[in-house]
Amino acid sequence: MIIVLKPATATAMQAKLMSRFGADHEIFTHGNRIAIQGLRPQAIPADVQAASETVLTDVPAAVQSSRLFHPEDTIITTPHSVIGGDQFVMMAGPCSVESATHVDQMAAVAKQGGATIVRGGAFKPRTSPYSFQGLGETGLQYLRAAADKHDLDMITEVMDDEHVAMVAKYTDIFQIGARNMQNFSLLKAVGQTQIPVALKRGMSATIDDVLNAAEYIAAGGNHQIMILERGIRTFDNKYTRNTFDLGAVPVLQSLTHYPVIVDPSHAVGTWELVTPMAMAGVAAGASGMIVEIHDQPTQALSDGPQALKPATYLKMAQQAFQLHDLMQTWA
Amino acid sequence: MIIVLKPATATAMQAKLMSRFGADHEIFTHGNRIAIQGLRPQAIPADVQAASETVLTDVPAAVQSSRLFHPEDTIITTPHSVIGGDQFVMMAGPCSVESATHVDQMAAVAKQGGATIVRGGAFKPRTSPYSFQGLGETGLQYLRAAADKHDLDMITEVMDDEHVAMVAKYTDIFQIGARNMQNFSLLKAVGQTQIPVALKRGMSATIDDVLNAAEYIAAGGNHQIMILERGIRTFDNKYTRNTFDLGAVPVLQSLTHYPVIVDPSHAVGTWELVTPMAMAGVAAGASGMIVEIHDQPTQALSDGPQALKPATYLKMAQQAFQLHDLMQTWA
Amino acid sequence: MIIVLKPATATAMQAKLMSRFGADHEIFTHGNRIAIQGLRPQAIPADVQAASETVLTDVPAAVQSSRLFHPEDTIITTPHSVIGGDQFVMMAGPCSVESATHVDQMAAVAKQGGATIVRGGAFKPRTSPYSFQGLGETGLQYLRAAADKHDLDMITEVMDDEHVAMVAKYTDIFQIGARNMQNFSLLKAVGQTQIPVALKRGMSATIDDVLNAAEYIAAGGNHQIMILERGIRTFDNKYTRNTFDLGAVPVLQSLTHYPVIVDPSHAVGTWELVTPMAMAGVAAGASGMIVEIHDQPTQALSDGPQALKPATYLKMAQQAFQLHDLMQTWA
Amino acid sequence: MIIVLKPATATAMQAKLMSRFGADHEIFTHGNRIAIQGLRPQAIPADVQAASETVLTDVPAAVQSSRLFHPEDTIITTPHSVIGGDQFVMMAGPCSVESATHVDQMAAVAKQGGATIVRGGAFKPRTSPYSFQGLGETGLQYLRAAADKHDLDMITEVMDDEHVAMVAKYTDIFQIGARNMQNFSLLKAVGQTQIPVALKRGMSATIDDVLNAAEYIAAGGNHQIMILERGIRTFDNKYTRNTFDLGAVPVLQSLTHYPVIVDPSHAVGTWELVTPMAMAGVAAGASGMIVEIHDQPTQALSDGPQALKPATYLKMAQQAFQLHDLMQTWA
Repeated sequence: MIIVLKPATATAMQAKLMSRFGADHEIFTHGNRIAIQGLRPQAIPADVQAASETVLTDVPAAVQSSRLFHPEDTIITTPHSVIGGDQFVMMAGPCSVESATHVDQMAAVAKQGGATIVRGGAFKPRTSPYSFQGLGETGLQYLRAAADKHDLDMITEVMDDEHVAMVAKYTDIFQIGARNMQNFSLLKAVGQTQIPVALKRGMSATIDDVLNAAEYIAAGGNHQIMILERGIRTFDNKYTRNTFDLGAVPVLQSLTHYPVIVDPSHAVGTWELVTPMAMAGVAAGASGMIVEIHDQPTQALSDGPQALKPATYLKMAQQAFQLHDLMQTWA
Repeated sequence: MIIVLKPATATAMQAKLMSRFGADHEIFTHGNRIAIQGLRPQAIPADVQAASETVLTDVPAAVQSSRLFHPEDTIITTPHSVIGGDQFVMMAGPCSVESATHVDQMAAVAKQGGATIVRGGAFKPRTSPYSFQGLGETGLQYLRAAADKHDLDMITEVMDDEHVAMVAKYTDIFQIGARNMQNFSLLKAVGQTQIPVALKRGMSATIDDVLNAAEYIAAGGNHQIMILERGIRTFDNKYTRNTFDLGAVPVLQSLTHYPVIVDPSHAVGTWELVTPMAMAGVAAGASGMIVEIHDQPTQALSDGPQALKPATYLKMAQQAFQLHDLMQTWA
Repeated sequence: MIIVLKPATATAMQAKLMSRFGADHEIFTHGNRIAIQGLRPQAIPADVQAASETVLTDVPAAVQSSRLFHPEDTIITTPHSVIGGDQFVMMAGPCSVESATHVDQMAAVAKQGGATIVRGGAFKPRTSPYSFQGLGETGLQYLRAAADKHDLDMITEVMDDEHVAMVAKYTDIFQIGARNMQNFSLLKAVGQTQIPVALKRGMSATIDDVLNAAEYIAAGGNHQIMILERGIRTFDNKYTRNTFDLGAVPVLQSLTHYPVIVDPSHAVGTWELVTPMAMAGVAAGASGMIVEIHDQPTQALSDGPQALKPATYLKMAQQAFQLHDLMQTWA
Repeated sequence: MIIVLKPATATAMQAKLMSRFGADHEIFTHGNRIAIQGLRPQAIPADVQAASETVLTDVPAAVQSSRLFHPEDTIITTPHSVIGGDQFVMMAGPCSVESATHVDQMAAVAKQGGATIVRGGAFKPRTSPYSFQGLGETGLQYLRAAADKHDLDMITEVMDDEHVAMVAKYTDIFQIGARNMQNFSLLKAVGQTQIPVALKRGMSATIDDVLNAAEYIAAGGNHQIMILERGIRTFDNKYTRNTFDLGAVPVLQSLTHYPVIVDPSHAVGTWELVTPMAMAGVAAGASGMIVEIHDQPTQALSDGPQALKPATYLKMAQQAFQLHDLMQTWA
């Protein structure tokens, strides 16, 4: 249940409700709103009812993530980026951090295309145990150095709650991978930090599943969350690795205040399709994009077929910003 | 197998191959190409090999629909529209033809937004036998009158091979519905006409399935085909009726020469999501869009929740053309 | 809405309701029940309420197919078979009718395994227009002769409403294929006959979709319907053609009174898996099975890889009847 | 690549290949077989070729899990159970451990039905952070006590690599939940133990995905693995929570030597369907079943709707063993 209180007495009423119900219920406040988990409407005291504008009883389990609780957009600020609202943020980089030199070169390309965030994996969730598993902490050091040199923020995947503290020493944004979207121990661990989290939707996660996963992070006190759409698993997987679910962009934006970012590279899995799908993602209204780049895709240590070469990336990025500019004139 | 012949002797070689193999194999020619179904490469005569530029042996079953056989875009011309290539075509109208007056009003709105084709159903494929099944031939007459009055082309669904001749008396474009995408009798029947066909992808049709369905039409001699992406059925159907598979747009464009049109209304099933998904469809590179409009959606005889009101449609259409114009500068 | 009337006055009340509401509403009666489409509960006359045991308002659109309307099992009787209830019926034969001799041999094998119905396709819904399309009416004649010689019933697919009358001259049971499950013209046409119909669930049809499709047949007056589960399309299609949805068997049995038959051959698409899936289908409670057999699968004109050779079929069939016998002891 | 060596010199050749290629390649041996990851066939020394029966080059990434590498069934032995081969093992218990008394009562019921393993969750992967998360280590103590009192083995979920050592103090079998099937850190952690692991297939995991996940465990040296089919996520989820993919049972049995267990409770999510689906699972050939029971399902702390009451469980279990006995006569 969410009670929208009259602004004049909201603080007092929130304090009162917390002292009355806080021992037995989870309670969250935002502005003049208060959400109380599991309370029955009949239990609301009469004076609180009198001090209320509205009482919402049809409320999702992921209440802190909901626009009913938090109507305005969450805007996430990192040293070089503003994510959410009317902004459009570009994140680019190689799938894996391969070497200090290579990630530095890719960071320079990313920056040239307008990116403010460089991506790269140091811990790789590979389907097979015998595939390249990433450079580990060394990879984090390389990526951090590249980000710093080019005045970029850094995003990287953390796969494991035991690694959260270590990855936190380096990164500006945690990425939670699609396979770990319901690794609740990991979600709780990043929820204990104050570092922004980019949560990838799982391959077969419904919209409600991804919002509940976000809620695990929020429940720990970390509200710097963005959601990444990266394609879902369907019957149609001969020509694209996944099905890019762009309808999820406006659906999520209507349900949650967290920014929504698109990942066309993983959605389609083949570089020829990345530019049209990136444009479609911008046009669908995403707050940003994360895209994989590589100067020699055939030599990439992971996911080469979906990486854009630098020239293709630069043209795509220019188009993306032009399209976002056009859309700003429509608002 | 497709043999790409040297232009100088292509005609002679095609004639030779047809007389030699035509009795036992399906043979199709296009420009200097010839496709022979089921021939083994070893059977190619030596002089044909000498007169060939290339022999393609890894060829899809839907050979006439393939760009390997027909590399250049198919452009379909109707009295008021050009569909395919760099053009962007708008099709709009009510889900069902409801009355002469109503469809006339909706045609006026469609035209005002830049549409050159008005849509409307007279035979409705309804899930339940007890739902409104359409006005039948009367509906066709109303839609034809509205199209003529406003100098528009008309598109309408034909559900049944027995109705093809009757519907052909009225329409400029046949629509084949998603549920009938593999109604092979119907595909064969429209394939016998020379009226353009808009083939909707079935709810669980793969890319290859839809190309094979197109091939049934082409096999009858009708090559005026366009393909409509209208969403596929996935596990994710709480907030959208279907999952709009925009990756199918560039995938189809790479595989086939037929124009690809998007149908955001059926893809999402709820009007609030139609505009962002329509924009995404344009950005993905579609050659046009078909969209449902209604002045009083709550009173619509079918699919009201997904219909755009006139003002919303007009703004969406304006944005779509602006976006298409921007994209023309990128080519 | 379904009104369950007190038996003593049920007939009178039904007549009264029909004369009062029959002009404006679809009305169906079964025993002491009456279903009135689209009537609001407030409109029930007071004397009818007094004569009612229950009024059910949460009723599916496919009302005649529902157990709420028709609680007892539908039992279908053909010359050599009883389908539904506690019976278990075996249907076997080749995918396509290939020749008079071949289908006769296969009918003999089918019979030897305990089948009372022989299957075979004369009109084949093939993905590609260039694949074998069936022998047509000649195939029907061969299959009829084979069925008659071996004292079997015959089941065969009808693909087209124009062919219904012709196929009706030969067959004991119409089969509606998965691709035509929502070919509403065809459903209406077989609904006009009194020949039993085996309706295959479409590849992406929900349970409600298949019941609504059945309702199209029932709405025409033909209530001799059975439903065939033959696998659905999912992301998991490398080792099996479809995903055999055996949960649909008890779900359908709880919702509808029509018999449910399983088709393991099409569900998995590879003969090695047919026997375990056939056993699973029996154990799930199906009223029968339809299975493809061929003496030389590699030479079959269609779907050879999923056909059981005679010896494998005979062992599988024996096990199926043993399993059904065991299950009868559990009831 | 897998080299099948002639038995006489197999040991010597394996030693030779390991010393020659062990530094650069992952190498595994089993009986007279040796698998070398990433070696090109041309690199096989001539004397090894001469000492080989066969060289298999089309080998899956999950090589240790493959029957090509390990043709005979893996049989897992725990204090009270034998899992795999011709055995049929019953595992039953409540979804969550709720109290010492309750889990003891449920263990007694499980045992009465023929179970040799009692299940119960102490760490619960709940969709919402605000749902009951399990009793933690206390729950493990209760379950261990119940298992010991009734001479049963214990299976329980471990959600987190940090908890592996603690859970290992209590359990006979680790369960890896569907949401964690690709939590590679966790898979590696249980792979370092010698405790049997029941790996649940993820909701959208392909057959190859689950085998690769098993390989992560095997790669750590733990080969006591069983695979649980528990339903996959499809478009069809109104009447069943998931789609029980029983085709996966024989498919997995053909590809891997690990036992395959079915979980009908999670597959369907509603108790009325559990018995027919349990029977179908046995008939499909599973080596065992895991099923949820509760004496008061409406009071259960989790997943009550899918729990069988004791009397229903006892009847179901009796039928399952009867069915397995019948099947033994078919082999």
